[in-house]
Amino acid sequence: MLPQEVLTQSAEAIINFNNVGLSILEIGHRTSWFVDVIEEAKLLVKEFMQLQDGYEVLFLQGGATTQFMQVPLNLLGDAETAAYCDNGIWGSKAIKEAKLYGHVNVVASSKDKNHSYIPKAFTVPTESKYLHYTTNNTVEGTEWHTIPETTVPLVADMSSDIFSRPMDFNRFSLIYAGAQKNMGAAGVTLVVVKKSLLGTVPRKISSILDYQSHIEANSLLNTPPVFAIYVALLTLRWIKKEGGLVEMEKRAKIRADLFYNTLDALPLFTPLVAKEDRSLMNATFTIKDETLEAAFLEECKANGMVGIKGHRSVGGLRVSMYNAMPLSSVEALCSLMEQFAKKHG
Amino acid sequence: MLPQEVLTQSAEAIINFNNVGLSILEIGHRTSWFVDVIEEAKLLVKEFMQLQDGYEVLFLQGGATTQFMQVPLNLLGDAETAAYCDNGIWGSKAIKEAKLYGHVNVVASSKDKNHSYIPKAFTVPTESKYLHYTTNNTVEGTEWHTIPETTVPLVADMSSDIFSRPMDFNRFSLIYAGAQKNMGAAGVTLVVVKKSLLGTVPRKISSILDYQSHIEANSLLNTPPVFAIYVALLTLRWIKKEGGLVEMEKRAKIRADLFYNTLDALPLFTPLVAKEDRSLMNATFTIKDETLEAAFLEECKANGMVGIKGHRSVGGLRVSMYNAMPLSSVEALCSLMEQFAKKHG
Repeated sequence: MLPQEVLTQSAEAIINFNNVGLSILEIGHRTSWFVDVIEEAKLLVKEFMQLQDGYEVLFLQGGATTQFMQVPLNLLGDAETAAYCDNGIWGSKAIKEAKLYGHVNVVASSKDKNHSYIPKAFTVPTESKYLHYTTNNTVEGTEWHTIPETTVPLVADMSSDIFSRPMDFNRFSLIYAGAQKNMGAAGVTLVVVKKSLLGTVPRKISSILDYQSHIEANSLLNTPPVFAIYVALLTLRWIKKEGGLVEMEKRAKIRADLFYNTLDALPLFTPLVAKEDRSLMNATFTIKDETLEAAFLEECKANGMVGIKGHRSVGGLRVSMYNAMPLSSVEALCSLMEQFAKKHG
Repeated sequence: MLPQEVLTQSAEAIINFNNVGLSILEIGHRTSWFVDVIEEAKLLVKEFMQLQDGYEVLFLQGGATTQFMQVPLNLLGDAETAAYCDNGIWGSKAIKEAKLYGHVNVVASSKDKNHSYIPKAFTVPTESKYLHYTTNNTVEGTEWHTIPETTVPLVADMSSDIFSRPMDFNRFSLIYAGAQKNMGAAGVTLVVVKKSLLGTVPRKISSILDYQSHIEANSLLNTPPVFAIYVALLTLRWIKKEGGLVEMEKRAKIRADLFYNTLDALPLFTPLVAKEDRSLMNATFTIKDETLEAAFLEECKANGMVGIKGHRSVGGLRVSMYNAMPLSSVEALCSLMEQFAKKHG
């Protein structure tokens, strides 16, 4: 879901980008027009994250799934070990890819309870090359509300909660995020990396997979996804105009409080996640009487609410409440749930 | 350059995709709406290429530069040798990447004359794993007007002349093309691959780089670049409506004939490429008196013609005439060149 004004501005840019008389789909990626786009987007990312010197901001392709392999390819030597948290489907995929490049030590797992919580006390061996975790688990509906304490470099997949809240981003050595949740449309991946982290693995790396090459080329190593980067810029501008990450977090909390309070008050529904680990972005739950699920989804659809079905890997129901979701949509859903519960409770 | 109606339709889809009341930037990639998009695009590719059974059509990310490494990663074993043609900047980059994965035998090079021609007689050892070449060299302005004769599997980078002419596409085992020339906007890469070619290399391959994984997932292994695929579909529809590849080739020949005839008739300008190897997509030339180059570019710009400057790696001048370029634009440029030659000749 994107803000309406981002959609309007994106459509306008396809007809006439910045009044230069060309479409954003046609402008060359080495024109000053596009260099301005990428520079402004980088600056906004650095501003939101309050990044200290030494970080690079890259706009790449291939989504988080590509980062699952690009991170270990660049950071993890054949004989080295990286620590990974296994807290859901995306983290598991990252672990699988990392094993192709080096050793993986799963230091924290929530597999014993269907990934319905975030592990609290765990130890990261100091010789680990890095610690990788997924800040928000879209499928399971959990979110890390604190940053793990560790002395090893922190790597995080923030695809689904990036720019939804202020964080101490300088505690991370590498952050990546597919754009399609809070940061724009599918087709571009944000990577924020501490330069000092790179260059420690002797392996030969194809230039297109080498963070260092992308840094040297300022994200213009090859033709970048021009339009997707522009939509990301429009979304970043919108976040800033609305009040930045502080305001995004405030809205997320209001939305999530309303939703979870409604959920907890209705015995017909069962939340799937431990209270203290609930995601502000994705709420997962089931209906006690499973046979009512289809009827509930039907009612949602009739009221213009789509995408409530849980991820195909876990089933159940899921409500996503990303940055651009207006409170009124959550209110409408809550009132639908209350009526549904009254009818079927 | 994209057809005007593709731009208009793209902008409309950002506001309201297919009248479903959602933006193309918001629809899920697993909805039937998007599956229909990808299936129609695949069908059109198969139809244009008249592909026999056994081929798969994929829509990936990362551009031709990613294919430079993905091709050898998937097809070339550590101890095997692939034959490559070195006919320009893109081919050279492909060779560099292939060397990371196996042995490269450069069987045909035009390096001796600044890549200003296409090698005609060369031998491809029968034990080569495949022969790789770039069908059109955007930077140098050459194009292969025949398909090389060989018994080994043919792999071609068709990024810059795909769908500009009918070809016997069934002679290829793997074809790839970044979309941003004739097939849409930057952000999606077409890969057409013969399934029987895959699975012969024992190396472990990350799923995101494995053609086989993408085939099994029907290009939905991870979130695909939804919007870029949709723009590609709109462009494919436009090609079909206009008369298909036969009509695209007819138009390309009329444009190129006009341009090269004008170029050859004006002694002020020097074509850079051997007559029989000239590209129908990209014409490269210089002005005999180099000091006039800036004045010429200035005059072009004043008349709304941008992008005439040659690639930064070779200099000189370059005119690109992709599918969507109207004949009137070439006519305007030719008349500008004639007037410029009269003034300065």
